[in-house]
Amino acid sequence: MRGGIWGMAAALACTAPMTAQAQTAQVAGRWIVTVDYFGTPTIWTLDIKQDGDRISGDLTGDIFTGTVKGSEIRFLAKDTVGGSEDVTARLANGRIAGEMILIDGAEQARTPHRLGFTAERAPQPSGAAPRRHEFVPERFYRQFSALNPPVLHVNPGDTIHTTTIDAAGIDAQGVRRAAPGNPQTGPFYIDGAMPGDTLVVRIRRLRLNRDTAISTNGMTERGQDARTAVQMAGLGKTVTWRLDRDKGIATPAAPGDALKGYWVPVRPMLGGIGVAADPGSAAPGSGDVGRFGGNMDFNEMGEGTTVYFPVAVPGALLYFGDGHALQGDGETTGDALETSMDVEVEVDLVRGKRAGQVRIETPTHIVAIGLDGSLDASFRSASSSMFAWLAGDYGLAPADIAQVFGTAAEYRVSAVPGRAAGIVLKIPKARLATLPGAPKP
Amino acid sequence: MRGGIWGMAAALACTAPMTAQAQTAQVAGRWIVTVDYFGTPTIWTLDIKQDGDRISGDLTGDIFTGTVKGSEIRFLAKDTVGGSEDVTARLANGRIAGEMILIDGAEQARTPHRLGFTAERAPQPSGAAPRRHEFVPERFYRQFSALNPPVLHVNPGDTIHTTTIDAAGIDAQGVRRAAPGNPQTGPFYIDGAMPGDTLVVRIRRLRLNRDTAISTNGMTERGQDARTAVQMAGLGKTVTWRLDRDKGIATPAAPGDALKGYWVPVRPMLGGIGVAADPGSAAPGSGDVGRFGGNMDFNEMGEGTTVYFPVAVPGALLYFGDGHALQGDGETTGDALETSMDVEVEVDLVRGKRAGQVRIETPTHIVAIGLDGSLDASFRSASSSMFAWLAGDYGLAPADIAQVFGTAAEYRVSAVPGRAAGIVLKIPKARLATLPGAPKP
Repeated sequence: MRGGIWGMAAALACTAPMTAQAQTAQVAGRWIVTVDYFGTPTIWTLDIKQDGDRISGDLTGDIFTGTVKGSEIRFLAKDTVGGSEDVTARLANGRIAGEMILIDGAEQARTPHRLGFTAERAPQPSGAAPRRHEFVPERFYRQFSALNPPVLHVNPGDTIHTTTIDAAGIDAQGVRRAAPGNPQTGPFYIDGAMPGDTLVVRIRRLRLNRDTAISTNGMTERGQDARTAVQMAGLGKTVTWRLDRDKGIATPAAPGDALKGYWVPVRPMLGGIGVAADPGSAAPGSGDVGRFGGNMDFNEMGEGTTVYFPVAVPGALLYFGDGHALQGDGETTGDALETSMDVEVEVDLVRGKRAGQVRIETPTHIVAIGLDGSLDASFRSASSSMFAWLAGDYGLAPADIAQVFGTAAEYRVSAVPGRAAGIVLKIPKARLATLPGAPKP
Repeated sequence: MRGGIWGMAAALACTAPMTAQAQTAQVAGRWIVTVDYFGTPTIWTLDIKQDGDRISGDLTGDIFTGTVKGSEIRFLAKDTVGGSEDVTARLANGRIAGEMILIDGAEQARTPHRLGFTAERAPQPSGAAPRRHEFVPERFYRQFSALNPPVLHVNPGDTIHTTTIDAAGIDAQGVRRAAPGNPQTGPFYIDGAMPGDTLVVRIRRLRLNRDTAISTNGMTERGQDARTAVQMAGLGKTVTWRLDRDKGIATPAAPGDALKGYWVPVRPMLGGIGVAADPGSAAPGSGDVGRFGGNMDFNEMGEGTTVYFPVAVPGALLYFGDGHALQGDGETTGDALETSMDVEVEVDLVRGKRAGQVRIETPTHIVAIGLDGSLDASFRSASSSMFAWLAGDYGLAPADIAQVFGTAAEYRVSAVPGRAAGIVLKIPKARLATLPGAPKP
């Protein structure tokens, strides 16, 4: 393997001649390989072409040839920098199990390693007509983990209709269903989704399903100067809001005199939406953010918005939750108007194309999100993510991108209460539509 | 004086008995005092009440009584912490000149100082009906300085119709009129404006007056990650835009293939608008920002917007310039679409009330602006400024303010190319209108 165990680069071919034999097992196709890397399950892909007892293909980018002898599989895969996997395995009950002698090109002095692995055929979409799944969640997860069992398999093109509970773990009936901390509905396994693909999630419907939301009366520390901090001391307590679903408005349940009459139109959104992170890294919690998405708390994550996620594990494993009836920019109170939701999403797949970043599309804008430790770092991150988007999908040169940013950029603070300070960069689709290189819908 | 020479606090009365005499000069009223503080002109106010040869009043917050003997004026002003000004002066030709023995309460060991001063009667609004001034600028300033001579005296309620040149110093005819660096039109002296007041500037009309704008093809450093920086290397060169004033759109004058057809609706704004800073501090440059306003580069500073400035010097001394035909949030190219403008502003005065911060009101929002060294610091600053606004003008308690922020805050990045990184916090007026304590228009 090139560039260390976590690298996933292309490599050169190498032939490892072996003896052929009869009763040859059929192993052609795509396999999902789980390598036990010193106790950490690491996901690789294995693509095999077969001609009788001879096989070829690539193992996570490393090219191989080899043989199948009965159910015995042997091949030697090599990269360009001295790394290799010498594989011995066996097919049984549709599953491959075996071991590899791994030489890591980046740390040859400490290798070879002898690693066990298993492989299963990558689930394929059934090819059936798109369908709508009614899903009633029974348990909820607080990590965007690859190790939680999928609750449902769906095909690209399918729609999932389900519900989420609030950030505190309370459902539409006011019943506790999970410990607090943004418990998520899911994970949903999208058949055929593989690392290297992009998962597309269209939020078709997002509706309130109860009449209350909870929030706090405090202020995120990032919003307080010394004088404000003194005045805010001791606040941060829970407050209740009434949700009027007919009128589509929210009002404080017990306002003081100064807030009597205050009302706000609701604007439901999902605070959290994400896919499983690569299990090679520790699973992020449901309050965390990253290239898997997560607790982005962006108040335009509502009906009509589409989110694009880089797929890190087979099936992608989609989670969502932490519904907000309404949230001001910045989520300055630390909590938005937290409530349960009725959710319908349509999933889709772009195969073999992955942006490396979460991308968001609202009815009017394309949106890059920066989620880093400071607003300045996130400004840089959102700008650079959009830079890559416009370069890759619109054919713009750096000087062109500067012109688009300079005339059409809309930067908003998304949420700042957590470890990450979010900035989104929005570019109006109407402006991009004037470009000759704009992707056709 | 209490709290050091720069403090401006209230103080206790003290009587300095003196002998009265005939031929008493009339000195009652408000005077603007310029104290020569070791070479730095420092502006104080002097309010005098007169009863025959006896006077009383306050000198920048320090209460005094004293006498007028012919044209000779004597009084002793005292504060509460041991500071005092023992004043001896003479009225001649409507002007007071004299000296004071100053004991600074905060640094008694280094005082008394003997300081010269002069005083002139504060200009009063004429009481005439509001009028519209046609003003043709001849020279332009690059500092928000109290020391530049006013180009025009106007009354509160008056309208000024004039023009600005672009950030590079070029006028509507393409003629160089000033060195580059946001040269400003003005300063306009608003009669009656005094420290402690708020200057109100309503942008009534803001129109393009030529067919080109200039910008650059670079990216502000705050927007570049390492990868973007490599791709942006060598950019930052001037580009020209065509302004179609009939259609109200801007297009690149010489677009590459990828930008052919790109157009943007213009949205004229003033990059710079501010009042003179207190001359006790160094005069800020026309690229700087602060409580005097300045180069805020906020793209909603256009027609229909009102700006409220704390007045620091008599007459306020209003400057504006650096017109942008259009600017994306962040002013990421370092320059917006820089052009000359036709400008009409109405000025007004709120006497005896000063927020301490610039406040902005658009047709739909009230807006607090944070202009500090990082986006995080500016987020804090904008939040705290709005906090004070809602507490002071809407009667909201801290917990109430948290609710308004949490449900209605809109945070945008305004401009980041300079030393300051701007964040604005916008609150929709429609939400505030529901509050019982909302100020009546």
